[in-house]
Amino acid sequence: MSKTEKKITELGKKMVKEIEEGKSPEFESTLRTKSNTLYDEGIGCLRLGDKKESRKFLSVAQARTFMQTVAIAAKTRQFLEQNLHTSIRGLFYQLKFSLGENMDEELFSEQAESNALIEDLEVALKVKREDLNLTTDRKGFVAGPMKIRDKFGGDETIIDCAKQGRSGWSIPSDVDNDMEIEKVNAKYVLVVEKDALWQRLNEDQFWKKENCLVVTPKGQSTRGTRRLLRKLADQKLPIYCLMDCDAWGWYIYWTIKTGSMNLAYLGRDFAVPEARFIGVTMSDIEEFDFLKKLTIKAKDVDLKRAQEMMDYPWINRHKEWVKELKMVLKTKKKIEQDALQGQRLTFVGEYIKDKIENKKWLP
Amino acid sequence: MSKTEKKITELGKKMVKEIEEGKSPEFESTLRTKSNTLYDEGIGCLRLGDKKESRKFLSVAQARTFMQTVAIAAKTRQFLEQNLHTSIRGLFYQLKFSLGENMDEELFSEQAESNALIEDLEVALKVKREDLNLTTDRKGFVAGPMKIRDKFGGDETIIDCAKQGRSGWSIPSDVDNDMEIEKVNAKYVLVVEKDALWQRLNEDQFWKKENCLVVTPKGQSTRGTRRLLRKLADQKLPIYCLMDCDAWGWYIYWTIKTGSMNLAYLGRDFAVPEARFIGVTMSDIEEFDFLKKLTIKAKDVDLKRAQEMMDYPWINRHKEWVKELKMVLKTKKKIEQDALQGQRLTFVGEYIKDKIENKKWLP
Repeated sequence: MSKTEKKITELGKKMVKEIEEGKSPEFESTLRTKSNTLYDEGIGCLRLGDKKESRKFLSVAQARTFMQTVAIAAKTRQFLEQNLHTSIRGLFYQLKFSLGENMDEELFSEQAESNALIEDLEVALKVKREDLNLTTDRKGFVAGPMKIRDKFGGDETIIDCAKQGRSGWSIPSDVDNDMEIEKVNAKYVLVVEKDALWQRLNEDQFWKKENCLVVTPKGQSTRGTRRLLRKLADQKLPIYCLMDCDAWGWYIYWTIKTGSMNLAYLGRDFAVPEARFIGVTMSDIEEFDFLKKLTIKAKDVDLKRAQEMMDYPWINRHKEWVKELKMVLKTKKKIEQDALQGQRLTFVGEYIKDKIENKKWLP
Repeated sequence: MSKTEKKITELGKKMVKEIEEGKSPEFESTLRTKSNTLYDEGIGCLRLGDKKESRKFLSVAQARTFMQTVAIAAKTRQFLEQNLHTSIRGLFYQLKFSLGENMDEELFSEQAESNALIEDLEVALKVKREDLNLTTDRKGFVAGPMKIRDKFGGDETIIDCAKQGRSGWSIPSDVDNDMEIEKVNAKYVLVVEKDALWQRLNEDQFWKKENCLVVTPKGQSTRGTRRLLRKLADQKLPIYCLMDCDAWGWYIYWTIKTGSMNLAYLGRDFAVPEARFIGVTMSDIEEFDFLKKLTIKAKDVDLKRAQEMMDYPWINRHKEWVKELKMVLKTKKKIEQDALQGQRLTFVGEYIKDKIENKKWLP
C-alpha cells in the first residue's frame, strides 16, 4: 500500500470512528483564501498560512461537498489499488456513475483553474493530485543532455532528451511517480515561453552548443513542467527564463518562480525561487538598436498587470523589476520574444549567451 | 535549389519582366471564397473550384497586400536558402524590420485561422507553408509500432514511437520535409480526440495489445497531424476515429475526413476521406446501459451544429449520420468520450475493439 493509500485509509477510519461515536464526521484542511496566502521570504515563494478550516458532514452548507470529497477519496484510493490513472474528467464520470445526477460537472473541468474538491483532498492529506493517480493537462517540451527513466505501465523506458529530433520530449503530467531523472549533464536550464522559439533554438542546436537543457512550457506552465523545473533546480542547475515583455510573459515567469495566488497551496514543490529572468526587457531596446523598430503597442491588460505587479511586495522589493515596469507604463510599449528574430533568425541564441555570460538578468 | 525556391524565383522573374515591359506586376491565385469551395465526390473532400483571381500591384485596393505578399515570398525564399525555419510570428517581425510600421500584426497571429497573405502564396505557388520553412502550431501525439526518421537540423534521428513511455511522440509541425516514416507495422490507426483518453489507452498498452497506432490530435487537428494521418492512410492503414458526441467532436472528425470550409484550399493533402467514426454515438446508449446515466445536456452550440451538419450534402448523404444527428436534436443530450470510463477505467479499450471488430462505425 502506497503512502497516499495509507493516508486516505486513515482519513476513512477516522471518519468511521466519528460516526460510531455518534459524532459528525469531519476533516481538517488549510484555509485557501487570499487572507491565508502569504509570501514566504525564507523560501521565496507563495504558500498558505496556518489558518485551518474544518469540513463537516452535519452542516447544511457543507454536506453535499463533504460527501463528494469523501467520494473522491474513495475513488482515487481505488485508482491507486488498481494502479490505473485517469483525468479529472474521467473522475467526474466515475462519480456521476456512482452518485448519479447530483454532480456539478463544472467542478471537474480540466480547464477550471481550481478544482475545489480535489484541492481540499490535496491540502487535507498533504499529497499532490498526481499522487492520487489523477492526470492533468500536459504541454511543455525539453531538449538537451538529460535521460529520463520512465517506468510507466510496467514497461521501463529510457528517454534520451538529446535524441528527440525536432519534437523534443513531451513533459508528462506527472514527473514524480514511476519516473526519475536518470542523468542530467547540462550547465543550465533555459526556459523559453513559446514553442515557436523553442523550435528555433532546437534547429540551431543551441542546447548542444551550450550544453544546456532548453525547455518550453508552451505558455503558462503546467504542473508537470513546474515540478520538473523544481527537480532540476534541486540538482543545482541555474534556471534562466526568456519570456515576452508583457502581462502574460511576466505572469508565466512569476508563476514559475514564486507560484501564483490561486495555486499557493502547492507551495515550494511547484516553485523555483532560484529562477532568473534574462529577457525580453524594455532595457534591451537601449542595447539592441534593431529592437526599437520591433516594439508593439501595449494592451490595457499589460498596463494593468504592470501596475498590479508593482504592488506585490515580492516583486516591488526588486528595484530592477520596478524600473522595468515603470518603463512599460511610461512608454506604453511591449516586446515579444519573437521580435529577437526580426533582424536575423539566429540572433536569439547570441542574445541568450550574452545575457547569461554577462549576468544580465532580473531576479 | 529546392522546388519551392525555384517556384518563388520564377514568380519574381515574371514580375520583373512585367515591370520592365511597363506593365503592372501581378500574380494569379485561386479564389478562396465559399462560392468557389466545393465537395469533390471523386476524392471525398472539400477543395477549391477553378475560379481564379488576379492580384495586381497597380490597384489602389490591392497595392498594400500585394507588396506584403511579395515581401513574404522574398523572405521565405531567404529562409529556404539559409535552411532555417521560423514561425508566422517570426516572419511578421522579419517583415516589420524590413517594411517598418506598416504591418498588420493580426494577419500574422498563430491563432488566426487564416493567414490571408501566406494562403495567397500557398495557393498561387501550389506549395504548403511548411515547404516555405514556416512552422505552425503542433499539438498531437502518437504511440505504437512506427519508426520515424527525422533529419532535422543536420542530425539524423530514428524515433521509435513504441518506446516513448508515458509521453508518446509529439507530432511536429512538418512531417514531410527532412522526415519520413521509416517503418510502420500496425494493423490500423486509432485517433482519439482527447489527450486524457490517449493517456488512458497508453497506460493500458492498448497499442501493443492491438498492434495499432494510437494518435491524439488533442482537440482540433493541427496541419501536422492531418498530414501524418494522410500519409498513414496512403499506406493503406484504416483510420478509426473516437470523438465526443458533440459539436466539437463532430467538427474535429469532419475536418480530418473532408477538411473544413476555411481550409478547403489545402485539398486532399490534408484530408482523410477513408476515416471512419467509431464513436461516441447516441446509439451507444441503447447498447451500453451504463452510458444512459452519463449523458449530459447538449449546449445550444451542439444543437445548432447538428442542424447545420444535416444541411451539408457531404454529410446528409449518409443516413447513419442523419439518424445520429436527429437523435441529438430530439433528446438534446450529448456524450463525451470520457464517459466511457464511468463504470470501469479500462472499458474504453473493450469498447474500441468491439466497434472495430464488428464494423460498427459511421462513414
